[in-house]
Amino acid sequence: MQNEITDSELLQARRDAVLSPSYRLFYEHPIHVVRGEGVWLHDAQGRKYLDAYNNVPVAGHCHPYIVERTVEQARKLNTHTRYLTDKPVELAERLLATMPSDMGSVILTNSGSEANDLAIRIARMLTGGTGVIVTDCAYHGTTDLLQGMSPVTGLPTGRDVFTIQVPLEMQDEQEFGRLVRECLDRMQAQGVKPAALLVDTIFGSDGAISDPAGFLKPALEEIHAAGAMFIADEVQPGFGRTGGGMWGFSRHGIVPDFVTMGKPMGNGHPVAALVTKRSIAEAFRSHQRYFNTFGGNTVSSAAALATLDVIEQEGLVQNARETGAYLRLGLEALARDHDSITALRGSGLFQGVQTPSGEVAARIVNAMRDKGVLIGAAGRGNAALKVRPPLPVKRSEVDFLLDVLAQVLRSEAGR
Amino acid sequence: MQNEITDSELLQARRDAVLSPSYRLFYEHPIHVVRGEGVWLHDAQGRKYLDAYNNVPVAGHCHPYIVERTVEQARKLNTHTRYLTDKPVELAERLLATMPSDMGSVILTNSGSEANDLAIRIARMLTGGTGVIVTDCAYHGTTDLLQGMSPVTGLPTGRDVFTIQVPLEMQDEQEFGRLVRECLDRMQAQGVKPAALLVDTIFGSDGAISDPAGFLKPALEEIHAAGAMFIADEVQPGFGRTGGGMWGFSRHGIVPDFVTMGKPMGNGHPVAALVTKRSIAEAFRSHQRYFNTFGGNTVSSAAALATLDVIEQEGLVQNARETGAYLRLGLEALARDHDSITALRGSGLFQGVQTPSGEVAARIVNAMRDKGVLIGAAGRGNAALKVRPPLPVKRSEVDFLLDVLAQVLRSEAGR
Repeated sequence: MQNEITDSELLQARRDAVLSPSYRLFYEHPIHVVRGEGVWLHDAQGRKYLDAYNNVPVAGHCHPYIVERTVEQARKLNTHTRYLTDKPVELAERLLATMPSDMGSVILTNSGSEANDLAIRIARMLTGGTGVIVTDCAYHGTTDLLQGMSPVTGLPTGRDVFTIQVPLEMQDEQEFGRLVRECLDRMQAQGVKPAALLVDTIFGSDGAISDPAGFLKPALEEIHAAGAMFIADEVQPGFGRTGGGMWGFSRHGIVPDFVTMGKPMGNGHPVAALVTKRSIAEAFRSHQRYFNTFGGNTVSSAAALATLDVIEQEGLVQNARETGAYLRLGLEALARDHDSITALRGSGLFQGVQTPSGEVAARIVNAMRDKGVLIGAAGRGNAALKVRPPLPVKRSEVDFLLDVLAQVLRSEAGR
Repeated sequence: MQNEITDSELLQARRDAVLSPSYRLFYEHPIHVVRGEGVWLHDAQGRKYLDAYNNVPVAGHCHPYIVERTVEQARKLNTHTRYLTDKPVELAERLLATMPSDMGSVILTNSGSEANDLAIRIARMLTGGTGVIVTDCAYHGTTDLLQGMSPVTGLPTGRDVFTIQVPLEMQDEQEFGRLVRECLDRMQAQGVKPAALLVDTIFGSDGAISDPAGFLKPALEEIHAAGAMFIADEVQPGFGRTGGGMWGFSRHGIVPDFVTMGKPMGNGHPVAALVTKRSIAEAFRSHQRYFNTFGGNTVSSAAALATLDVIEQEGLVQNARETGAYLRLGLEALARDHDSITALRGSGLFQGVQTPSGEVAARIVNAMRDKGVLIGAAGRGNAALKVRPPLPVKRSEVDFLLDVLAQVLRSEAGR
């Protein structure tokens, strides 16, 4: 039968009929995924793909220890923070132990969006200001408030939201601070009192801007001098991704006022958090209470605790640093040979590979998918390749990725 | 040793040191919960409590079928909606099958807050209006946008948010519609174009307002006549709670524009959804895309599918109706004998028991906790008892609840 309908085609038709048309599938030829294991995804046709895109399964897809610790808790108790239970307390203790001692208070949520939304609310309440600074390709979440702080979506920025056009290559450590200062001046000129600077500390959606490490320090000093607060959005870089410690802000030697985290925190289980200085938490508490039904439930907390265990026990931060450096050297070798790579940025296992245009990047991403390697695109015009595998990725797997990328770059050169 | 520190005291001290002081524990004597099973919670001291409060574990705490179906998926694949996977599609199909045929499009989120936040955003975008009507003790979520639509928190209402003082007892089916009409007039007088009416269809935080069934119909007609949209917040009544079908809006014979759901949807697993008419989804899509990292992941979808299975297989909607009616009769008998009950409201296994004041309600709630039954308080001044057990509750367990309530009411009468 020539026109046999495959299971995948049928599933896609059923999907189109019931899921919102706002959803988009990745790739020209979407992948019907049926199984995940470590850094590999398997499709319904029996093909396997090296996952060099997903940062959520930070410890690898379906990590057995994390799954079993989570279900162990799910069989025993799943309840909220209005009863006294051990897991959210242990989780808060463990998270704070990874941070500077000024960071002293944890609120657990279900998504990075909920954490960022709350951070902005607290910063505005405590500073009495409304002005928020973000970068011009930032993405910070899905809520109404955060859509207005996520210019990469193409939606209009929200009230009193100001953007900085962040350079892909910083001239020096002071440059970002100067840009923040200029933005604060613009704000003042418009009579807006500043509340917060909100930045992803690896600038993921801007195309992975990482160097020189330390460039966030002058920015933090400027924002504090203006009476406003610094929110480190660790949804992308957090949990060891950059290889420079557990958090992206660590590479810059700063102590933020707020740290928000999400995606990798439960290795796929929906769990996220907002960490603040204790003084901020106390001041917020005097204004209002906070409760989040699912946030900090015993099972989500257990999933996050197990993920922290694995990051520690398997030395994933060190692997992000070492295998990340190995990946970077390989990318540098390819960049020397291929005009389609115009710059390299990023840190650890978050690498941004600049190409001349969004069209080139899309062709590379789709061609690599067809050859069994999953990556994505980000940054201005989606022209930067985003290479971001789960942290246990091995050198042999990086070799495979580099080999496929080399093939694709060769055929790109031959166009 | 007279002053031995218990494990629970130590845990509470550790908790106070690391979790935000915005968190509050229930009860004068908080409960250190270590295990849940069916409608029972067990504490660290070996006491057990009849859970007549928690609507999240709708099928009972730690339901084995739901736990095992969820972990089965977690061992196989946990990924997002940008790949083609079966579970979110099956879930959307199953949800739509429980609704009027006009409801045709699903977006999956992590919390009722995320669903309500998005519904408001879409309604404002498509109507071109900004005005939103809520009830004066409403609670709709934790985001910045929704805090301004949750006057029960005591926080100021948001821009262009108007409130209706909802009567605990409706005079007739038309009354709520008249109140919406008056509110729309106030809005018009202030030059605000209406976008949406957002109501919890069991009015949970208002104290459980349910009758006469059908009173939402004139309200929906008024809001449509004004060019605005009706959002049915089913976070509280959804998934069979009221005994009048799967959704609170079913009791009122209406087809909303948006249905939002959360809490009970995954029996404790963080999963939620926004369902809209297909035409609304198409119109929204032409404005913007939507993606939610965890929303609609394969494992959360599996948890929600398993919860739907159990609601169906164990006849939980019917049990909510029957055992709910049994509970109501028992409460009516107590109301005849005790002045501390001034009115009864609610439907199915969501019963609101009005007391003369928040002080009386708090004394009853705490005394019942000490005798092994967990309930809560809600409504204006927190004066209404909220009785809302997991849906598999049996008559013998309701007898225990009524017996304890009778004891407490007797000692309340003897004060």
